[in-house]
Amino acid sequence: MKKKLSKKLISENSIINKFFKKLTNNNIGTFNLENDAGYLNFSNKNKTVVTTDTIIERIDFFPDDPPESIAQKLICVNLSDLSSMGSFPKAYTLNLSINSKIDVIWLKKFTKRLNNLQKKFNFYLIGGDISKSKQLTLTSTFFGHTKLKNILSQNKCYPNEDIWVTGNLGNSFMGYNVLKNPNLKIKKNKLNFYKKSYLFPKPCMFGSVASKYISCATDISDGFYGDLNKILNNKYGAKIKKNNLPVTTSLKNIINDNKSLIFFEDIFNWGDDYELIFTANKKLRNKILNLANSNNIKLSNVGTVIKKIGIYDDSYNLIKKTGSYDHFL
Amino acid sequence: MKKKLSKKLISENSIINKFFKKLTNNNIGTFNLENDAGYLNFSNKNKTVVTTDTIIERIDFFPDDPPESIAQKLICVNLSDLSSMGSFPKAYTLNLSINSKIDVIWLKKFTKRLNNLQKKFNFYLIGGDISKSKQLTLTSTFFGHTKLKNILSQNKCYPNEDIWVTGNLGNSFMGYNVLKNPNLKIKKNKLNFYKKSYLFPKPCMFGSVASKYISCATDISDGFYGDLNKILNNKYGAKIKKNNLPVTTSLKNIINDNKSLIFFEDIFNWGDDYELIFTANKKLRNKILNLANSNNIKLSNVGTVIKKIGIYDDSYNLIKKTGSYDHFL
Repeated sequence: MKKKLSKKLISENSIINKFFKKLTNNNIGTFNLENDAGYLNFSNKNKTVVTTDTIIERIDFFPDDPPESIAQKLICVNLSDLSSMGSFPKAYTLNLSINSKIDVIWLKKFTKRLNNLQKKFNFYLIGGDISKSKQLTLTSTFFGHTKLKNILSQNKCYPNEDIWVTGNLGNSFMGYNVLKNPNLKIKKNKLNFYKKSYLFPKPCMFGSVASKYISCATDISDGFYGDLNKILNNKYGAKIKKNNLPVTTSLKNIINDNKSLIFFEDIFNWGDDYELIFTANKKLRNKILNLANSNNIKLSNVGTVIKKIGIYDDSYNLIKKTGSYDHFL
Repeated sequence: MKKKLSKKLISENSIINKFFKKLTNNNIGTFNLENDAGYLNFSNKNKTVVTTDTIIERIDFFPDDPPESIAQKLICVNLSDLSSMGSFPKAYTLNLSINSKIDVIWLKKFTKRLNNLQKKFNFYLIGGDISKSKQLTLTSTFFGHTKLKNILSQNKCYPNEDIWVTGNLGNSFMGYNVLKNPNLKIKKNKLNFYKKSYLFPKPCMFGSVASKYISCATDISDGFYGDLNKILNNKYGAKIKKNNLPVTTSLKNIINDNKSLIFFEDIFNWGDDYELIFTANKKLRNKILNLANSNNIKLSNVGTVIKKIGIYDDSYNLIKKTGSYDHFL
């Protein structure tokens, strides 16, 4: 179950633990709401993976963001979840709560982008509803398919496994900063690249194809450290090769030019990259790299699962405490 | 696909026809978005029926309505759709966008009611998300199961078929009026009954058990005439025995005492009863009545599907024009 509440209200984990976990009736496929998606257990062999997400204006996007960007974010956040569950997208539902600013042109652009994404990732719309609201609010529920044996959970890693990250981190983070702060020192030709990274995130579907090699996976929606913490699940720790964390030289240079405004380490607490973190047995290293290569996916081996709780650097200096960090306030 | 937009914005049918229908890729189970639910076509025999609904404060409920009422409305609207598709509930997802008024007590009451409904109707929570919003907004996506041959569509009726309605109409309509207008003449002992009918609607699950006898069905979410219009699908008409429309004598008397404030005919344009309208072959009349009896369901035979377009009374006086009533404004 997803958590996106501000800490000012009530803690998300507390709400889920206290109120919602009991509603699963411990059914198989619900993962006790500890995963970002579940599956429907209708057939013995093939499973229907279900994931759902709501995005809201002024929280998940700016009110004036292009409709194509809002469509892409809504789809990306769900596809990324299906991938981290080891499944392929099949269909989705859409709940639109729209306000008076939404007109035909907006809808045309919005649905055109949905259509493009459907063609690219091979899924279709199955139903939904449309309501009127003050705040533009969009919910999408996605259905993926996979074999039972290929379904991934986000908290089944084992000590000595490799920790992998797909793609590059921080490009979306820089895009957000560029949009918020026009005073940043950045070359014009780089500006658009980072804006686009933030406005049009791309889901990494490597989990769908590589699930047979992966022990556990999650997409980066709460930041690298936050999501690694989920994987470690209060049972294990991690030793991280900080130099292997995939940040481009170009991005490092821009942050260096804007030291007083942007902090490099914030990249790893920022969630909108939609890349995957996964763990896998060291013996599978070559198979995984070959599969990534043939799917044109950049992969970085960033560390190892260890028995000692906590996230450490190469020299065993503590980078982050792990465990439950979410309490009633 | 559901339609709940105010006519002031853009017409719902236009939005769906213009923008969303093409997104189904004509896949089986989507019904070209002309049904309130679709199904996932993963297995040849057993189907997963999917339906989804959003409810929003100040539109679908009052901000100070009891949390139990909001829970019941959210679940009822979805269960009623599963029933009208001929399926049994299995699981659901929940997207909560909550505002600062929502506290632990609210959540406790809300989830307690969810739990009660889960036990009564035998389904479980599979996942969801929680976000922060100005307006309390709740989306639920439900999964039902049934055999392919038992799946009902809402626009496959045939001439000479009986038109049936479950339960009683208008009790929720009166509950709404009672809450809005404290000046209504109504005895105290009746007051609570009608309030409860509005605040705690009960889904009629007769469609799940009777689907093998039913040709087509819909739940009453847009009012009796509006939903009958959907069933007739611009192809056929209906002859209605107005005296058979199920309104209790008690309700008729109250409306009679408040003639200047409430119009009797408005009952049939009000959508919150969540009863079913369905059509069936006349030969099945006894089987249907016996099944209703053994399931403790009140059934009224209210008319016949006819070839002539339009909704008429017993003497062929036109009651309502049918067909498309939803255009760009």
